[in-house]
Amino acid sequence: MKRADEGLGFIMKYENVAWYEDGKVRILDRRIYPIRIEYVVCEKHEDVARAIADMVTQSGGPYTAAGMGMVLACYESEGQKEQERIAFLEKAAYTLSHARPTTSAKMQKFTGSVLDAAKQAMQRGDNVVDAALEQAIGDLNDRYNRYEPVGQIIASLIPKNGTILTQCWAETDIAMTLRACRNMGNEIKVICAETRPYFQGARLTASCAYDMGFDVTVISDNMPAYTMKMKPIDLFTSAADVISCDGYVVNKIGTFQIALAAKYWGIPYYATGNPNEAHPTIDTVVIEERDPELTLHAMDIKLTLDGVKGYYPAFDITPPELITGIATVKGLMKPTELDAFFK
Amino acid sequence: MKRADEGLGFIMKYENVAWYEDGKVRILDRRIYPIRIEYVVCEKHEDVARAIADMVTQSGGPYTAAGMGMVLACYESEGQKEQERIAFLEKAAYTLSHARPTTSAKMQKFTGSVLDAAKQAMQRGDNVVDAALEQAIGDLNDRYNRYEPVGQIIASLIPKNGTILTQCWAETDIAMTLRACRNMGNEIKVICAETRPYFQGARLTASCAYDMGFDVTVISDNMPAYTMKMKPIDLFTSAADVISCDGYVVNKIGTFQIALAAKYWGIPYYATGNPNEAHPTIDTVVIEERDPELTLHAMDIKLTLDGVKGYYPAFDITPPELITGIATVKGLMKPTELDAFFK
Repeated sequence: MKRADEGLGFIMKYENVAWYEDGKVRILDRRIYPIRIEYVVCEKHEDVARAIADMVTQSGGPYTAAGMGMVLACYESEGQKEQERIAFLEKAAYTLSHARPTTSAKMQKFTGSVLDAAKQAMQRGDNVVDAALEQAIGDLNDRYNRYEPVGQIIASLIPKNGTILTQCWAETDIAMTLRACRNMGNEIKVICAETRPYFQGARLTASCAYDMGFDVTVISDNMPAYTMKMKPIDLFTSAADVISCDGYVVNKIGTFQIALAAKYWGIPYYATGNPNEAHPTIDTVVIEERDPELTLHAMDIKLTLDGVKGYYPAFDITPPELITGIATVKGLMKPTELDAFFK
Repeated sequence: MKRADEGLGFIMKYENVAWYEDGKVRILDRRIYPIRIEYVVCEKHEDVARAIADMVTQSGGPYTAAGMGMVLACYESEGQKEQERIAFLEKAAYTLSHARPTTSAKMQKFTGSVLDAAKQAMQRGDNVVDAALEQAIGDLNDRYNRYEPVGQIIASLIPKNGTILTQCWAETDIAMTLRACRNMGNEIKVICAETRPYFQGARLTASCAYDMGFDVTVISDNMPAYTMKMKPIDLFTSAADVISCDGYVVNKIGTFQIALAAKYWGIPYYATGNPNEAHPTIDTVVIEERDPELTLHAMDIKLTLDGVKGYYPAFDITPPELITGIATVKGLMKPTELDAFFK
């Protein structure tokens, strides 16, 4: 089985996301990485579901974890009669895919595909665990392969030995961009805004890029606009949680004000991702607010007096006039011309 | 002695900044407040100088500490012969005012005035420590009184029960604005950006405003632009470390990108402070860079892998076209019309 994670940086590698081996799934704890490198070790698929719900892994991590959780369920059910085992695995697929309600539809693709592979192995009389693991790895390879062209598009926009600014942890998108740069022999510099309150930019993006051998600089979230003046930044790039068909990018809070600053300095902003048919306009997107207490803490240390309030919009909205282009699986598009994606 | 600190919030009160009493100066440790309320207790004026150098107190705090350090030097030198004592106090004034090289000229005003008061008390045969303490308190009252009109200007610009956004810890400026609002019966809401890497907005500004009884909300530094969309913010206000005569505001990193966002949303930005004749244009201002390691830490916790770099410009520059007005001790002025200040 080809391992598509090669050269994708420490935390993109399977064994550092969520990996099945010898009846256990080990999940890298992204809540604390790289301050401490700790794994949550799951001996039952329900433990995997709980780890997903508890944000042990995030971004693309839960999809990996859910697939590996299904492999674990296959191991747990060894020795059961076929009908009993199928029922067990179907229940496991439900449990794992519903660990986070908002992403359950997407999660079901990953649990469902391993479930199907397990059923087919049973019919053939093959080793079910081996077949399930092969399928889980195959699904991951597919996901990486799907994103590879998106990374290549962004990489093709970066001048030789140029500098990019990014924010939060775009996982597959940014790692694919970096791998494409490496393959093109372009030793770019990466500047990451730290991304409060969870510091994903400092902890995860910077670690991934550094582990891949790139020159990485972390700045605080109050520094992007001035850093654009002081450093030769060639482009700002981010992933997107939602792209509405009318060209608005919904992404981790902070994207909008970096895009504003980029516009001011004439620096292009390229988002990555596909427009979502469920959102013909931005008006249908609801911006999630998270626990306001999180903005009052840093790495679990309370910063303020009790009684001071917090406000934590998880995402913001960047309008099309601040977006230079959107790199989709169907190529680079202008935010005002996303109709082309569906044709 | 009238205590001008009344109603200025916990960390503006003398005893919570730096206070001489019974042969000791107690300095509130602003590096950790309000996570822990700790004081550095100084039994010699050299300890006060070291505390200033070590950033135990900041913003206006060092001026208070330097004056109180002189009172301590008067106590230390009790029993010395007059000429010997004068030499001791002159040396103490030098030590205290040069604790931080870049502000020594301004610091000398505060140490010099207490030195003069001590010398006069000696000539009169009065109690030198009492006279020095009275002078140190008087100097503080003068400083508060000088800033009071600046706070009144900003307060007069805020609609009834309005909301302001601020950042970092503008100390006297913001506390005077809040006191003026209180005196006018205007129960405003305050939103503070947390201000990485030191969290002054979360730790100090929010605490001061909350202690004064205002409704306070802290946001991360990546949230101002989106918060301006979601909350009814009436104005953005900040102090200034330098205001050049051609109308540029040099202030804590982050000010510039908040001002950019305010312009985008049509929200006015008012800075406080006086133009500085030493800087006829912005080109003469050097922006200090601090230890880049600081951006890689949060409350002393290292966030990144070793080898990841940091970048920490301490201040940024906001151009006049993003500034609605500057509240000076001579009234509210447009950034492009600061010549009037010197007439």
